[in-house]
Amino acid sequence: MQKTDFFGKKYQECKIGKIAYIAKEKPITLSSGESLSNIPVAYQTYGKLNHDKSNVILLGHPLTADQYAANKHPVTGKPGWWQHLIGRDLAIDTNKFFVICANVLGGCMGSHGPKELNPDTKKPYALDFPIVTICDMVKVQKQFLEEFFAIEKIFALIGGSMGGMLALEWAAKYPETVDSVISVASAAKHTAQNIAFHEIGRQAIMADQNWHQGNYINKKSFPEKGLAIARMAAHVTYLSEDALAEKFGRNLQDKNCPSYGFNIDFQIESYLHHQGMSFVDRFDANSYLYITRAMDYFDLAAENEGNLSLAFKNSEQVKFCIISFSDDWLFPTSESKAILNALNFVGARASFAQIKSDRGHDSFLLKNQEFATVMNSFLEGNYALRS
Amino acid sequence: MQKTDFFGKKYQECKIGKIAYIAKEKPITLSSGESLSNIPVAYQTYGKLNHDKSNVILLGHPLTADQYAANKHPVTGKPGWWQHLIGRDLAIDTNKFFVICANVLGGCMGSHGPKELNPDTKKPYALDFPIVTICDMVKVQKQFLEEFFAIEKIFALIGGSMGGMLALEWAAKYPETVDSVISVASAAKHTAQNIAFHEIGRQAIMADQNWHQGNYINKKSFPEKGLAIARMAAHVTYLSEDALAEKFGRNLQDKNCPSYGFNIDFQIESYLHHQGMSFVDRFDANSYLYITRAMDYFDLAAENEGNLSLAFKNSEQVKFCIISFSDDWLFPTSESKAILNALNFVGARASFAQIKSDRGHDSFLLKNQEFATVMNSFLEGNYALRS
Repeated sequence: MQKTDFFGKKYQECKIGKIAYIAKEKPITLSSGESLSNIPVAYQTYGKLNHDKSNVILLGHPLTADQYAANKHPVTGKPGWWQHLIGRDLAIDTNKFFVICANVLGGCMGSHGPKELNPDTKKPYALDFPIVTICDMVKVQKQFLEEFFAIEKIFALIGGSMGGMLALEWAAKYPETVDSVISVASAAKHTAQNIAFHEIGRQAIMADQNWHQGNYINKKSFPEKGLAIARMAAHVTYLSEDALAEKFGRNLQDKNCPSYGFNIDFQIESYLHHQGMSFVDRFDANSYLYITRAMDYFDLAAENEGNLSLAFKNSEQVKFCIISFSDDWLFPTSESKAILNALNFVGARASFAQIKSDRGHDSFLLKNQEFATVMNSFLEGNYALRS
Repeated sequence: MQKTDFFGKKYQECKIGKIAYIAKEKPITLSSGESLSNIPVAYQTYGKLNHDKSNVILLGHPLTADQYAANKHPVTGKPGWWQHLIGRDLAIDTNKFFVICANVLGGCMGSHGPKELNPDTKKPYALDFPIVTICDMVKVQKQFLEEFFAIEKIFALIGGSMGGMLALEWAAKYPETVDSVISVASAAKHTAQNIAFHEIGRQAIMADQNWHQGNYINKKSFPEKGLAIARMAAHVTYLSEDALAEKFGRNLQDKNCPSYGFNIDFQIESYLHHQGMSFVDRFDANSYLYITRAMDYFDLAAENEGNLSLAFKNSEQVKFCIISFSDDWLFPTSESKAILNALNFVGARASFAQIKSDRGHDSFLLKNQEFATVMNSFLEGNYALRS
């Protein structure tokens, strides 16, 4: 955490890639009542759109990922976060499917968010950016597909973690526009424990003296310590206790005996510091506040008198595949089963798989043959039935 | 977190209670190699010492508690942390037993710690205080009992969480001085996940601009935001997910609809903020660094070639009662069973109880009849056998 450059600079230096501007004529009204127009949506696509536009897969990304799902990330230089799953002859086969992934509203990889310039002030929005919800993110996704690609109907919505929330929200609100949904390591609501961890992260960011009430870009500073701590706290929740024990245990970093001090001594500490420090190179602190808040507010049942099945009352023609991982304690199997129960209650076409895992919530981002097979079978089978 | 007074001030205004000074003539050598003399030990006692000093119970306190186990706390005005368990006709019956509880070395309620004045500089030690270990804390406890009370033999060592570590360490190192041990919600080592959560808390404290490399008392400041965040992160680990769901769920704080912002909106957030803010009134930030580090370094097996049973190879005459709580994920039952297995391997006299709980790690601090009964039966039975 001894860095001197700040995120804004790095961001400006890199090439974000494709950006579409939508809602020029038809503004989008957010859950908060505010309205947005001329919204930048940064996106990537994989595969080719077929002639009748029947091969569209819309991918929702998790909290801190972005549109670079299956190609090299321009900031980190690393492969896409699902590069092992999306491509020719892979689980999501781009010989067949046209995969679209867009950075969410509130994000920091080119889509509209708190880092973008406020046309009224010519300065970054910071906290003047409106609060966004998962519902708002989906509204932007939908209008983006309609306006930019003239796509009205999706073959499959796929998403893990927050991406699963986006898919479930879409399937609940616009069931007539979607054929099938894969929700991975996700939930129909954010639990109290999830909210608690997010709040710790937000407090760490907002306690950083370089946060400046959100106006750090104007002040040419960046709350990197706070954002790194937020990332560290989140990262502990992404791994199971067993995974941490197996991967790091109580191993010391460089030596055979402890240094007896407050510097990095254990390998787990080194890992967390690395995660924290590399995160501040690629993510915006205010975006972290906005996106975590959107997840906190997500509760499909609450919008339906506390009855989750009512959320899916018009989704009985949509085919759902709900996937959880056995040792994921952040989005545990019980949350996936709650979705499954609600879908069954309305007679929706729902399947469920719990994948045996040993890496906790992170499992959905790692290579796992069983997971790839379940997803691939569901997609191939439904696509064949559809043709 | 808008407070302006700081812990040091509040501490000076309150009456700490009894303090003994030990090691005036026989300095204590710490694990780090440093040596301490004239060490203040702040303590409380409950019940009366009998004529042959055979009724002594030494109580080890958890991380952020102190010597006020069964009487009103002078800073918070709240009852002692085990007031429901220690007293006349209670589980730890003071009609019979003489209970001693001392603030640990490194603590902040009167015992020697980073907040105390360094005699060489006449300023608070801050980070010049030597790193301490669980082993060092036990050395101070033992010398305190010998020098101050002339007690050489303990009837029972009892402790929960870190207090259990103290009891296990003592039983391993000085088995000839102890008759029985009750380890509650504890472990023979700190796991990678435990270290991770501690490191997040320490980073939050050290990232606070008011920490001043530990010299906040001299600067008349206090890293209250950082310490509050550390407490918030710790508190999430003290409760089970089910407890959080049941206690708070997704309930909003004051209203029927979210405020759509970054202020407190959910009850779980309000609870965590309250925990964080009330903690900074009563605990010292540097003490938090030192004590968490002591717990991180604790690993009874590591000191014995990785073989935990070797730690207890001379403890076969000590009677152990190992207690865990069913939904404690911070110090899970598996850690208690590891202790039990090691004790069984050396033929020690070990019993074990897993108490059904619905409040996670916090359960050991809450009223629970089954827990009280298990502890009481073990103490009464062993005391009767002994007489």
